[in-house]
Amino acid sequence: MTDARPSSSKVYRGDLRVPMREVRLTDGTSVTLYDTSGPYTDPAVSVDITRGLPRRREEWILGRGDVVRYDGRPARPADDGHRDERSRDHDLRSQDAVFTGGADPARTGHDADPARTGHGRGPLRAAGVPVTQLAYARRGVITKEMEFVALREGVGAEFVRDEVAAGRAIIPANVNHPESEPMIIGRNFLVKINANIGNSAVASTIAEEVDKMTWAIRWGADTVMDLSTGRNIHTTREWIIRNSPVPIGTVPLYQALEKVNGRAEDLSWEVYRDTLIEQCEQGVDYFTVHAGVRLAHVPLTVGRKTGIVSRGGSIMAAWCLAHHRESFLYEHFADICEILAAYDVAFSLGDGLRPGSIADANDEAQFAELRTLGELVKIAHAHDVQVMVEGPGHVPMHKIKENVDLQRELCDDTPFYTLGPLTTDIAPGYDHITSAIGAAMIGWYGTAMLCYVTPKEHLGLPNRDDVKTGVITYKIAAHAADLAKGHPGAQAWDDALSDARFEFRWEDQFDLSLDPDTARSFHDETLPAAPAKTAHFCSMCGPKFCSMRISHDIAAAYGGGPEGPEASEVPGGSGMSGDEIEAGMRAKAEEFAAGGNRVYLPLAD
Amino acid sequence: MTDARPSSSKVYRGDLRVPMREVRLTDGTSVTLYDTSGPYTDPAVSVDITRGLPRRREEWILGRGDVVRYDGRPARPADDGHRDERSRDHDLRSQDAVFTGGADPARTGHDADPARTGHGRGPLRAAGVPVTQLAYARRGVITKEMEFVALREGVGAEFVRDEVAAGRAIIPANVNHPESEPMIIGRNFLVKINANIGNSAVASTIAEEVDKMTWAIRWGADTVMDLSTGRNIHTTREWIIRNSPVPIGTVPLYQALEKVNGRAEDLSWEVYRDTLIEQCEQGVDYFTVHAGVRLAHVPLTVGRKTGIVSRGGSIMAAWCLAHHRESFLYEHFADICEILAAYDVAFSLGDGLRPGSIADANDEAQFAELRTLGELVKIAHAHDVQVMVEGPGHVPMHKIKENVDLQRELCDDTPFYTLGPLTTDIAPGYDHITSAIGAAMIGWYGTAMLCYVTPKEHLGLPNRDDVKTGVITYKIAAHAADLAKGHPGAQAWDDALSDARFEFRWEDQFDLSLDPDTARSFHDETLPAAPAKTAHFCSMCGPKFCSMRISHDIAAAYGGGPEGPEASEVPGGSGMSGDEIEAGMRAKAEEFAAGGNRVYLPLAD
Repeated sequence: MTDARPSSSKVYRGDLRVPMREVRLTDGTSVTLYDTSGPYTDPAVSVDITRGLPRRREEWILGRGDVVRYDGRPARPADDGHRDERSRDHDLRSQDAVFTGGADPARTGHDADPARTGHGRGPLRAAGVPVTQLAYARRGVITKEMEFVALREGVGAEFVRDEVAAGRAIIPANVNHPESEPMIIGRNFLVKINANIGNSAVASTIAEEVDKMTWAIRWGADTVMDLSTGRNIHTTREWIIRNSPVPIGTVPLYQALEKVNGRAEDLSWEVYRDTLIEQCEQGVDYFTVHAGVRLAHVPLTVGRKTGIVSRGGSIMAAWCLAHHRESFLYEHFADICEILAAYDVAFSLGDGLRPGSIADANDEAQFAELRTLGELVKIAHAHDVQVMVEGPGHVPMHKIKENVDLQRELCDDTPFYTLGPLTTDIAPGYDHITSAIGAAMIGWYGTAMLCYVTPKEHLGLPNRDDVKTGVITYKIAAHAADLAKGHPGAQAWDDALSDARFEFRWEDQFDLSLDPDTARSFHDETLPAAPAKTAHFCSMCGPKFCSMRISHDIAAAYGGGPEGPEASEVPGGSGMSGDEIEAGMRAKAEEFAAGGNRVYLPLAD
Repeated sequence: MTDARPSSSKVYRGDLRVPMREVRLTDGTSVTLYDTSGPYTDPAVSVDITRGLPRRREEWILGRGDVVRYDGRPARPADDGHRDERSRDHDLRSQDAVFTGGADPARTGHDADPARTGHGRGPLRAAGVPVTQLAYARRGVITKEMEFVALREGVGAEFVRDEVAAGRAIIPANVNHPESEPMIIGRNFLVKINANIGNSAVASTIAEEVDKMTWAIRWGADTVMDLSTGRNIHTTREWIIRNSPVPIGTVPLYQALEKVNGRAEDLSWEVYRDTLIEQCEQGVDYFTVHAGVRLAHVPLTVGRKTGIVSRGGSIMAAWCLAHHRESFLYEHFADICEILAAYDVAFSLGDGLRPGSIADANDEAQFAELRTLGELVKIAHAHDVQVMVEGPGHVPMHKIKENVDLQRELCDDTPFYTLGPLTTDIAPGYDHITSAIGAAMIGWYGTAMLCYVTPKEHLGLPNRDDVKTGVITYKIAAHAADLAKGHPGAQAWDDALSDARFEFRWEDQFDLSLDPDTARSFHDETLPAAPAKTAHFCSMCGPKFCSMRISHDIAAAYGGGPEGPEASEVPGGSGMSGDEIEAGMRAKAEEFAAGGNRVYLPLAD
């Protein structure tokens, strides 16, 4: 189950074997790109998803000598949304039949559950003190994870440690997710993107969700959030984590609500705590926790155009209202920190009151919650727990920057993680685009990770094509932000592609693009013939009007080219008198005329 | 050949019958939207494209008493890229066969050419003084065209006149294009978008191009540029103009180059002048003129990553180099102004040296040309010719604003008309998105019109689907810019859609969206049943988790709703003591509990 990308090799850097994608170009050079796709794109690796990925971090984790293995919380039918064991068996079998094609008897019962086979030796947790990357960083320890991300980002390991220690960056890396390839989220690193997957009560299967995960990372998702609800929620997550090389995030509240049959008022700290531990033991790397939705904030949403649009936010608001009590997430926040510190699960502090329309952007409900999140950041940091903060939502362009500035100020420069934002409400079906505009801008302003939005947002569940479109669109936004932030090295990719374009190396142009398959097929539509792939023109202008062709002729006339003379060496450049320029240009014009004034090449073949 | 949009009526405002689209909502209200689609979406109008659209402006134009009808320049085979009359007949017949399905003998010869039938009474031109909207505005005259756009934009006619008089806005309205519905391009009006169409030497037919025009305006294109090259260029343009309710722009240099068989060095002022007059007489509303590409600028492009990427720019650069002479467009700029003033054709001063890659953005070649364009603006204004200025191209986000600021400063606040810009080079196949990011931002910063980019950019010619995707994407960018600029009324559209969303009026949500067909089909994919279109939940969360459903319950608990109480009336709002808030919230919690703590509705059907 591996599938390399065209003209690309998986290469591993250093002793830690940091994976990169090397794209081979037709001119003999190559370009090396950041690679999120894991072993799935390495033909040298054989991946069996029933066994899970190799546990590459296990040795690092155990080597630190600060965790213990223990029996763990026993799995219960309710974890998968079942009332008794019998119905669970039944449901799992039918799921597994879908997942495996129904052929392998070894995969139709509990034993096929990787939670009980591959990883089933009991979870790890801290033996005593917190085992978080933040705790290590503060103690001055550079972990293997920090070394890994330093190589991956092309920066120094000490810089990574310093950013993590300051809380400006996080490395989501649960000790029970040893399969992961460490990555870092912070404003001073490459902008990251998250892809949401997850079945719902209405549609989708476990098999589809695991496939969506591998598909999302193939195209560049840096983390994946499993937002499953409904049946088999535990089992779906187990399969995803065991096979994921990227950090997995969840919203534990969704599963907790399943355990109380969807009745928000029946939620309790005990049910929620049980769910947190269940997911910590499975290996979830970060949790969205909507602890900022306080009782006093709920009335602020009443006058809104679109009320509360966050699922987690609305569930907690309903609970607060039903009990007329302060949120149990807020009241137990320190308890949550203690649990997360023992596994190194990071917080993603949920923005339960994010605006769901242009009209509601930057309102008091939203910013009241943000102030609360700022308080919670301090508590998390006091417990050595890594934390990032979620942001909107729907925001018109002129109100975007205020979000970043305020988050930075109120939340001690912790990483910001935003959903879009969508810059208009009028284009359902195209919200990957309405939000890519906002995402690119907010990334430039300093957001560390962008949560993707697919074309199906507001309308339906994303399918495989939607996931790909969402990921590619957000890679564009993230890279545009990297360019605008002047990230060292970001522009090298653009330059390599533009060089290929200018030199009519069509195959290289395709291979360097975010989506080579689409680029190639679009070119084929107008000019399908193979010679067109080496033609010194393209279908937009045809051979007569090719401006790039003419540019080459101009450059040749001046004795230069794309890698030609500096400005000071050409007529009109600095250091020449008016007469010299005049004479030089006349001479060049004569050369150009002598060469036949060629402004185009004849149509090849 | 008309096809109304779903749940929409064409309505006409005022004596001038300004067309608008009225969307009928299921709650009995309606929303009125700006409408570019012309008679094609009015079922009360019967459009016969062989006769062209009604000449609604003819009476206005003739009524001013300052134009004369004359014989006009005789059509020549070379206008259509033919060497002699016989081959032209042959080619036109085969084109017409495609265009009409080949059945109607009346449409297979010259007589089917609307240039010779419908409009063939000889063109109009100024009897003496310039007949431009700028000239009228400066003389204090409010033309019918100005009244029309004032109603269309929802502003005062005197404001329109003042903006036009100051050169801050243009109304492209050739006296020989009486079929057009006037529109205005300027930073203080709605941001406009242009769609490029046009066959090339490689592909496409006249029929396809006319269809692309009507298709582009159906989805919201405010102007259309016909960038055809190759055979039948004159005839294709004639069909497009006669059937277009939006202004048509061209690059006359392309046709001039055809007349000299594609040899740039054979171009001359005489050939170019002849082409200008030909197109002025046909009714083209604005011309891209690359008069800013001066001889001295050419060497500045040699060290670039991607040289010259503008077709017109590269042709003029090649000409300058071949002759070692200053550009004939630059030298004859005043002569060009005199021609344009006689027909009220506006300038779109071409950015022939725009950057074609991130690496080349904001370089000396680009800005040297912009300074020249600033000089040319003053000359155009001195001749009472309306003018806008074209801009890049490929520009990373952090370098976008400088383009707008510099254009505004150097070009006397004339409207800016930009291509994107693309904010990264790495995503061929998705350049509608890479450029929508830049387009939305540059629109916010003050660009008056955005030239669309389709998914096929850099790869091939756009087909019908690509044209639609490009137009919708750019409507998003333009509207996001309108919102960010705080254009009065822009947000009403978002609010109407968000209200429909919050109130689970799915059909209204679809009908109000930029692309109802796509929105509806996406919803159908996950929840195809008709009851789902009135369900109080959707497929993303399923019925149990619907945050909007919960928000309604919360609002109900407070006795409010989307149109509910002001903040001061609800607990937690201003004007209440802590105890009052406490008591109020407890009371509300009890009400909520008494109502069954409903956080979701059961799955309908």
